[in-house]
Amino acid sequence: MGPLNLPRKVTVLGSTGSVGVSTLDLFEQAGTEVEIVALVAGRNAELLAEQALRWRPQIAVVEDERALPRLRELLAGSGVATAAGVAAVTEAATRDAQWVMSAIVGFAGLAPTLAAARAGAVIALANKESLICAGPELLRTAKRAGGAVIPVDSEHSAIFQVFEPQNAAQVSRLILTASGGPFRSWSREQMGAAAPEQALAHPNWNMGAKISVDSATMMNKGLEVIEAAYLFSMPPERVDVLIHPQSIVHSLVEYADGSTLAQLGPPDMRTPIACAYAWPDRLPWPSERLDLARIGQLTFEAPDAARFPALAIAKAALEAGGCAPAVMNAADEIAVAAFLDRRIGFLDIARVVEETLERMTAEGWGRRNEGEVLETARAADATARRVAEEVAGGLMAPA
Amino acid sequence: MGPLNLPRKVTVLGSTGSVGVSTLDLFEQAGTEVEIVALVAGRNAELLAEQALRWRPQIAVVEDERALPRLRELLAGSGVATAAGVAAVTEAATRDAQWVMSAIVGFAGLAPTLAAARAGAVIALANKESLICAGPELLRTAKRAGGAVIPVDSEHSAIFQVFEPQNAAQVSRLILTASGGPFRSWSREQMGAAAPEQALAHPNWNMGAKISVDSATMMNKGLEVIEAAYLFSMPPERVDVLIHPQSIVHSLVEYADGSTLAQLGPPDMRTPIACAYAWPDRLPWPSERLDLARIGQLTFEAPDAARFPALAIAKAALEAGGCAPAVMNAADEIAVAAFLDRRIGFLDIARVVEETLERMTAEGWGRRNEGEVLETARAADATARRVAEEVAGGLMAPA
Repeated sequence: MGPLNLPRKVTVLGSTGSVGVSTLDLFEQAGTEVEIVALVAGRNAELLAEQALRWRPQIAVVEDERALPRLRELLAGSGVATAAGVAAVTEAATRDAQWVMSAIVGFAGLAPTLAAARAGAVIALANKESLICAGPELLRTAKRAGGAVIPVDSEHSAIFQVFEPQNAAQVSRLILTASGGPFRSWSREQMGAAAPEQALAHPNWNMGAKISVDSATMMNKGLEVIEAAYLFSMPPERVDVLIHPQSIVHSLVEYADGSTLAQLGPPDMRTPIACAYAWPDRLPWPSERLDLARIGQLTFEAPDAARFPALAIAKAALEAGGCAPAVMNAADEIAVAAFLDRRIGFLDIARVVEETLERMTAEGWGRRNEGEVLETARAADATARRVAEEVAGGLMAPA
Repeated sequence: MGPLNLPRKVTVLGSTGSVGVSTLDLFEQAGTEVEIVALVAGRNAELLAEQALRWRPQIAVVEDERALPRLRELLAGSGVATAAGVAAVTEAATRDAQWVMSAIVGFAGLAPTLAAARAGAVIALANKESLICAGPELLRTAKRAGGAVIPVDSEHSAIFQVFEPQNAAQVSRLILTASGGPFRSWSREQMGAAAPEQALAHPNWNMGAKISVDSATMMNKGLEVIEAAYLFSMPPERVDVLIHPQSIVHSLVEYADGSTLAQLGPPDMRTPIACAYAWPDRLPWPSERLDLARIGQLTFEAPDAARFPALAIAKAALEAGGCAPAVMNAADEIAVAAFLDRRIGFLDIARVVEETLERMTAEGWGRRNEGEVLETARAADATARRVAEEVAGGLMAPA
């Protein structure tokens, strides 16, 4: 494999989720000699134990304490330590790994990610909330501790790969590509009448219900705009979205000299994981080759602001600053749940998010006290959920 | 413009050609404060004098001595020195410029480019023959003298921009894009009957006759394969060609981790010139913005080896090594001229080049004496022209 300077001691937070599984599979495929420090899962003791028996970490941790007995049973006599609970997750994240995959889903990923950053590890970031709820703090913490944050999300990884830090001032635009989701070519009227089943039919990826609806509203892309602005220190007006239904060009960076650089590839999250792992080197593994001649054509169109208000909402949340992105994220979760429950219509999702944001920004949630990022974000999240439920209730059609 | 570390002392070889004019226009557009050391032209005294009066170089040189009296007349009293002839061109190339645009067309560009490289300048390379006839020597010379060679051709500039030198061993393929030329979708039979007028109708660019025919045969792309292999030290089997009629993706680099990086942009040579000038910085100038949504679609197809034998010929020339690429280049010039004169058919162009290469490789032209690169290349060029004329004569249809 040549003299690559790869991190040897590795922790995987969220090892039983799809990103965690892909991470371990990549190490397997690439024949990488890693020493796993900790594997952390939510509650899937069976898969976690299987991974622990293969990779022999110092410790295997489940966040859900009810899963601990089963985990202990499965790992009895293996020499792998076990633990459970929120504090154990954060403790595992701060052990001596040089590289930490942050792939716990949701708000629960924030505290261990911040802890790993404080410990100076390189963070491969797949947990969205870490950026949405505490982006500037996370990046500052990592920098101060001598670590780094490298995005794993395919769009942000693409930008990361063609973003020249020394030329940041000459970046005229980050261009995030978006599949456009299942309603890309629907009229606004059709979208208003869309049923949950229709929103769940994503053209390129088979995903969970929440993510599928976020793809249909483009709320996911709105959140990615916020993440990109934080990750690359770009003002909102220099982050654009471009619809690209084939999802082959993962994103682009446009420079002031007329050059636009892009990263392309088949949809396989092992590639951005490999990038985050080996950067600034490249980890060879038997990846699928991009065959543009076979694909034949790539198409692009501008997103329609009237049908996809999520993009403007995201930029407003960025402008508002502070906890506004966290509010947007929490309100969206409530709104999507209400839509999946058929309590509100599809276009109401954006309405709920927008009104929740407006109310809470007016109440001062656009500020944040730097010292208490976790507590403030948690409070913003909880309040946003309550306000969003109220707003959704107000939008419900009379039975 | 910020604290960019840009070369201040600049020489432009070939200042009155399209690349030279674009170079000076870029400096104008970008408001770059350059000090022009020398401007060198072939014979266009009028334009050279105009440029000299605007940019005030130390010296203005015409290669053609017959143009010197007019140049002197136009620059009388200006304080700009004048000179003419081949030796004066090379002398101008070795003055104290930090950055030299090598944009003289043809074999005449080789000697001054080698001289500038020996002087340790950063060479922005637009002269094809410098690589085709002496690629390995030029790169070695520049490296030894502490300079560098940065390509200006849009395809090679694209690769240069997304080629990570530290990861060269993980580059699985360089992918040069090609418009496919006017005969992209013609049958081989149609191509066999093609007239010069048809070969001259290039879909995307308005070019000279020789370049247009090279685009129709894809002989230009074959030569670019050779240039890329030299520039980036890649074996022939790791340089591919991909037809992309819109000419927006200028080329791509595929890495062993599954990532493919690309450079895109509207067709404007000022962008690769800006890149070569400011690298590793980026020079802002009021360039046209790439609007993929307006362009709508990009298409790709594999080149047909049966209709475009030039690509296989180029790889054979690379394998043969030594002077074989120079032979290919010279034979192509003769073959294209014979085609434009209607002495041979369109498909005969590749036949002439291939047979010339075979004969001369058999005669040992695949070797090269390192010390005498200019002389050897010149002899190979002259011999190839003679052999190619013979071969073309043998192919001529009986009247």
